[in-house]
Amino acid sequence: MSREQGITAKKFENFSEWYTQVIQKADLADYTDVSGVIVFKPRIYSVWEKVQDFFNKEIKKLGVKNAYFPLFIPEKLLTKESEHVEGFTPEVAWVTQGGNTKLTERLAIRPTSETIIYDSYSKWIRSYNDLPLKINQWCNVVRWEFKHAVPFLRTREFLWQEGHTVFATKEEAEEEVLEILHLYEKLFKELYAVPLLLGKKTELEKFPGAEYTLSIESFLPNGKIAQAGTSHYLGQHFSKPFNIKFKDKDEQEKYVHQNSWGTSTRGLGVMIAIHSDDNGLILPPAVAENKIVIIPILFDDSKEKVLKVAKELMKELKSFDPIIDDDASKRPGWKFAQYELIGIPLRIEIGPKDLEKNSVMITRRDTREKISSSLKELPNKIESILKQMQKDLYEKALENLNNSIIKTDNYNDLKNAKDKLYLVDFCLEKSCEEKLKEETGLKSINIPLKQKKFTNEKCLRCGNKATAQVYFGKTY
Amino acid sequence: MSREQGITAKKFENFSEWYTQVIQKADLADYTDVSGVIVFKPRIYSVWEKVQDFFNKEIKKLGVKNAYFPLFIPEKLLTKESEHVEGFTPEVAWVTQGGNTKLTERLAIRPTSETIIYDSYSKWIRSYNDLPLKINQWCNVVRWEFKHAVPFLRTREFLWQEGHTVFATKEEAEEEVLEILHLYEKLFKELYAVPLLLGKKTELEKFPGAEYTLSIESFLPNGKIAQAGTSHYLGQHFSKPFNIKFKDKDEQEKYVHQNSWGTSTRGLGVMIAIHSDDNGLILPPAVAENKIVIIPILFDDSKEKVLKVAKELMKELKSFDPIIDDDASKRPGWKFAQYELIGIPLRIEIGPKDLEKNSVMITRRDTREKISSSLKELPNKIESILKQMQKDLYEKALENLNNSIIKTDNYNDLKNAKDKLYLVDFCLEKSCEEKLKEETGLKSINIPLKQKKFTNEKCLRCGNKATAQVYFGKTY
Repeated sequence: MSREQGITAKKFENFSEWYTQVIQKADLADYTDVSGVIVFKPRIYSVWEKVQDFFNKEIKKLGVKNAYFPLFIPEKLLTKESEHVEGFTPEVAWVTQGGNTKLTERLAIRPTSETIIYDSYSKWIRSYNDLPLKINQWCNVVRWEFKHAVPFLRTREFLWQEGHTVFATKEEAEEEVLEILHLYEKLFKELYAVPLLLGKKTELEKFPGAEYTLSIESFLPNGKIAQAGTSHYLGQHFSKPFNIKFKDKDEQEKYVHQNSWGTSTRGLGVMIAIHSDDNGLILPPAVAENKIVIIPILFDDSKEKVLKVAKELMKELKSFDPIIDDDASKRPGWKFAQYELIGIPLRIEIGPKDLEKNSVMITRRDTREKISSSLKELPNKIESILKQMQKDLYEKALENLNNSIIKTDNYNDLKNAKDKLYLVDFCLEKSCEEKLKEETGLKSINIPLKQKKFTNEKCLRCGNKATAQVYFGKTY
Repeated sequence: MSREQGITAKKFENFSEWYTQVIQKADLADYTDVSGVIVFKPRIYSVWEKVQDFFNKEIKKLGVKNAYFPLFIPEKLLTKESEHVEGFTPEVAWVTQGGNTKLTERLAIRPTSETIIYDSYSKWIRSYNDLPLKINQWCNVVRWEFKHAVPFLRTREFLWQEGHTVFATKEEAEEEVLEILHLYEKLFKELYAVPLLLGKKTELEKFPGAEYTLSIESFLPNGKIAQAGTSHYLGQHFSKPFNIKFKDKDEQEKYVHQNSWGTSTRGLGVMIAIHSDDNGLILPPAVAENKIVIIPILFDDSKEKVLKVAKELMKELKSFDPIIDDDASKRPGWKFAQYELIGIPLRIEIGPKDLEKNSVMITRRDTREKISSSLKELPNKIESILKQMQKDLYEKALENLNNSIIKTDNYNDLKNAKDKLYLVDFCLEKSCEEKLKEETGLKSINIPLKQKKFTNEKCLRCGNKATAQVYFGKTY
């Protein structure tokens, strides 16, 4: 393992510096010679693999199949859906040369794959028998952002899944677009232990190529809100320009209804930022590759006996992918700090005194709570502590999220906004939202799925009739 | 399912046309608007996922971890190892623009990742404690070839895994480079059912940046040899220019020894080409997503009873991911042809007469052998037939490979070479091989791992002392 020094910045004093140190000292990512692009090191890539496994199993149940579409998108395809292209062209990386030959048409590196995929769909879909068509792909995408890069949270190349589904009817599409939103909620809860705000984007903030956009939003410790995934009902925005039609049972030719939905490695950054502390990384047990570290406490006279039991434990606890640190040249205290830094969920100390009592000492990474366990009960005990830890991490993050929500009907609260989430009655008018953005510097986050009943409430900004509660805040 | 017509070309008359039809009619790939780049459709991508699962499990046992490195390689990094760059620059796709901004240094899309990965390694490796370092990545790579593209076998973008391992000593590296070659052999046998030629590339044909290259080679039905993977002992070819050094136990600074190894989606093309026939795709059971198709034979008076049993079978045989085709509007014969075309390994017919005997009829896709089975024995029977089919496909391909090898000491055989593999005594001199290539149009394939004992044999071309048996042939 690395021999890093601890984190020197404080999470709630200097979030950026703290986050950067956690990423680097917990050995999760590295910068490269290409500005804005990172290496995903094994300790975090293994988390992404767990996310892939989970998500693949879930979407398989929904009849979605994985495929792989090209990295390159010809410029003329990218520009076929005009609203779509406006959103992306400022950020596209362009290939202009192959070998020593200048290309006749420059190729975009996919910033997202609607256009290249729907060009294929227009050839594949002929009749209602071909529907629904549900395809997902895992791939790299590139968005040439000029903002300062932050590992996982904002980089020019990142990894994601993008689902692209096609239906005969609006109803089927709308049912799925919501189903996927809830699947993301489940993924973020059961793996990342991250609570989310589920809702619909306003007209101003939706994906330009969508009829409407549903989103999952997470609240970072610096008070900023990070969008962590989207599920778009595209309607016929793409099927018309791409000519994706089918002959229905009634023999009529109709344009299909489409969804697209994606979540990316940004989720890794959200998870790291929310749970970790001033001692380093905290990983939810569900995604930790090594769930426990065994540290034998070695004294000259009992060394052999302790080591023997520690090694037996390695075998017995194999299902937790344990690591053992029996390096006699390092002090236990130094080791404890190292494994806290890299976020191993549980530490198991075993020393001569423990052995006399046939017990070991377990320490939780998040709370640092110490729990004694008999050797006999150990596997069950570990199992239940890990479960509890997963639950506690989620609950703690949820409590923090709830404590950060300010319900207000006073527009001055938004003008003098702190790093909080503001839930307000709003008219949903695009022009009113544009002015609110100008006047407060806040963006709308989303319109929560669950809404109160409206009677005569007024928009907190313009005073006209309010039609929905909307979250506003500072976005990452 | 698709309603494709059957294959109209013959495998052993017009291989290219036959192969193209199999790919398209079995719904495996599609061309795109970008020349030389394809879509991997779900029915073949699922095979690649099985390959990934298998390989990930195997390399995990060897202590290899997965990670992800950037798609982009700055030009100055790519050119750091001069032999390496000579091999690749004619085929590199270049990004020259990000958004509306011209880049100050153009970026290569990775054709392989040695240079970007080893730039990181030079920062990560400090001491013998950091070794061995074993990392693998699954990713897309781009080689801007100008030869005619063929799905899976030769496309400008393809998917692969690339392992990059670092050792303190030559011995450890050389042990691993061979171990990986045998792992590829196992992968190709147990999943693709494809036999390989294992050997070492000659100096002329090795990867320019390697000390030596081991390769796996497959024999296609058109008599061409397709390289299906390589395992390179890089020695210190990269550690010196990239300055990858470690402080050894003796306190001396030393350059590391490295390997890199990869196998790609080309293996999918090899598998398809070797096993399939004039009726369409044949998939080895180990990689088939749906291992069986159940076809109830429907007559008016027994329809309900037959359907009921068929649906019960769907549940009982769930572990084989069965599909059922109960579309009463299509004739059974038409259905049989469709499922043969798309390569479902076993077909299970169930009709009223079968039911009377409590039995069903199983048909193997490869041999079209019909095997009756009682309902009770069916799961075990399917299991054993699938195993046998996997074995038979491999044995048949192996027999064909062995029958294609011509041992000769007559140089005229090479000058008048047919679509065969020539195994000859050779001097291994680079200049002699260059002349042989000119005079015969053949390339050396590899130097088989298993060699006979040499006494006084002469090189079949120059007559000087022969030092090894070498395969020559026409490469894909």
